[in-house]
Amino acid sequence: MVDRHQIKTFAIISYCLHMHSIVIIGTGNIATHLCQAFYNTPEIHIAQIVGRSAAKLAAFSQYGETTTEYHAIVAADVYLIAVADNAISSVAKQLKQQQGLVVHTSGSTPMRVIKQENCGVFYPLQSFSKAKKVDFTNIPICLEAAQTQDVHLLEKLAHSISQKVHLITSAQRQKLHLSAVLVNNFTNHLFHWAASICDTHDLPFTILQPLIAETVDKLAYLSPKEAQTGPAKRKDTKTMEAHLAQLPNPLQQELYKLLSENIQHMADQ
Amino acid sequence: MVDRHQIKTFAIISYCLHMHSIVIIGTGNIATHLCQAFYNTPEIHIAQIVGRSAAKLAAFSQYGETTTEYHAIVAADVYLIAVADNAISSVAKQLKQQQGLVVHTSGSTPMRVIKQENCGVFYPLQSFSKAKKVDFTNIPICLEAAQTQDVHLLEKLAHSISQKVHLITSAQRQKLHLSAVLVNNFTNHLFHWAASICDTHDLPFTILQPLIAETVDKLAYLSPKEAQTGPAKRKDTKTMEAHLAQLPNPLQQELYKLLSENIQHMADQ
Repeated sequence: MVDRHQIKTFAIISYCLHMHSIVIIGTGNIATHLCQAFYNTPEIHIAQIVGRSAAKLAAFSQYGETTTEYHAIVAADVYLIAVADNAISSVAKQLKQQQGLVVHTSGSTPMRVIKQENCGVFYPLQSFSKAKKVDFTNIPICLEAAQTQDVHLLEKLAHSISQKVHLITSAQRQKLHLSAVLVNNFTNHLFHWAASICDTHDLPFTILQPLIAETVDKLAYLSPKEAQTGPAKRKDTKTMEAHLAQLPNPLQQELYKLLSENIQHMADQ
Repeated sequence: MVDRHQIKTFAIISYCLHMHSIVIIGTGNIATHLCQAFYNTPEIHIAQIVGRSAAKLAAFSQYGETTTEYHAIVAADVYLIAVADNAISSVAKQLKQQQGLVVHTSGSTPMRVIKQENCGVFYPLQSFSKAKKVDFTNIPICLEAAQTQDVHLLEKLAHSISQKVHLITSAQRQKLHLSAVLVNNFTNHLFHWAASICDTHDLPFTILQPLIAETVDKLAYLSPKEAQTGPAKRKDTKTMEAHLAQLPNPLQQELYKLLSENIQHMADQ
């Protein structure tokens, strides 16, 4: 636990050293990983972590002062809202009295759900799990700010934890979030689907892992368009029909057909 | 080039050292990679490489004698048929006079398209590109043999190049080939799809690569079922609708819907 006196001392030291202070709002995955990352960053001071549940906040007291009360929120350079997408707007309203920059960390939410003039976005493009510590150095941070002068501050914040900082618009971020669903959620789903086929037929899923590794390793020297192979690409109808006959339900058969069709559609573009 | 005298000398040495001799039929990707792998294996002797095109065979003369004539095929312990799936059966017929074991290297073709009694399958589960040399050590080799006594020979052959050798049935291999299409061809297609979205919106595809790497790295400590996240998994209709509105054609919209539906379907299983 950190007491009020220590907070004031931190604030004075921060000011002298040109450190930046942040308040993190949220107690989920992203809040956890951001706290871990910024806590280890000398030029950033976590002034406070804000959450609704005192129980959940307990795990955060190692990183700084915590509070469940919006009226007790301290002054800071940046307020990072790391809550569920549909709660961002109402959390931002609670911060109207604050002078600092108010940003959210969501991939799919427009910046303008935050009504403050000095609003922005600080979106780390990664899939976070509670279980696994994250090395932020390699994680792209996508930034946006309503006011040009705020870009610099967000860049300093982002560069303090990552080497990959991108300035993008809300429209680009929307596309990026859609792309992330394709390469992360949908790709993992294909792994799940394959794992379940293996499981049903007494095959270890690990047998596919060298192939999965190679599928990704290829991206280092071939574009995914160039790397495309398989029955759909070479229009090998016989193999595709044999695969369809093995799929147990109409939904998965339709999926196999449409994925094959989209492969052929995009090969021609 | 290797002359007839050298071939005979090799055959005698092979016999004395309990080496095994193989003939590779085919001049495509798999034939190339198998030649490279076996050429560097002291206990295997490539007796001959057989192909229809003298021009294509030229690149293979570094690994052993080559021929375009089936009547000139030499005696060997194993004949590895590495040709297009629909040509396996007719190639096998040309080998009827041979005593050696006749195997194909295809994922999707039943063993029994080879009519010889001593038939089998030697299926390396990997995606091969001409451009990239392959380290076979880590590539699973899936074996099948019609006669029990032939399993041992195929295992020796497989273990000479790989540490991952699996004995599986034709039925299992079919399922494995379908699974390979999901985790390799369809996954790469999702990468292509995402790359094309990035391209259209002035975003570098490399921005997604840490996320792609993490998607695969997670498999080391979570099953793909446990690792599943995203709007479909959490039934976040609002985000899914926003994504659908961004997709440019009905085929891709339908694909997004069905992938999301299958995620929900499989989460409940």
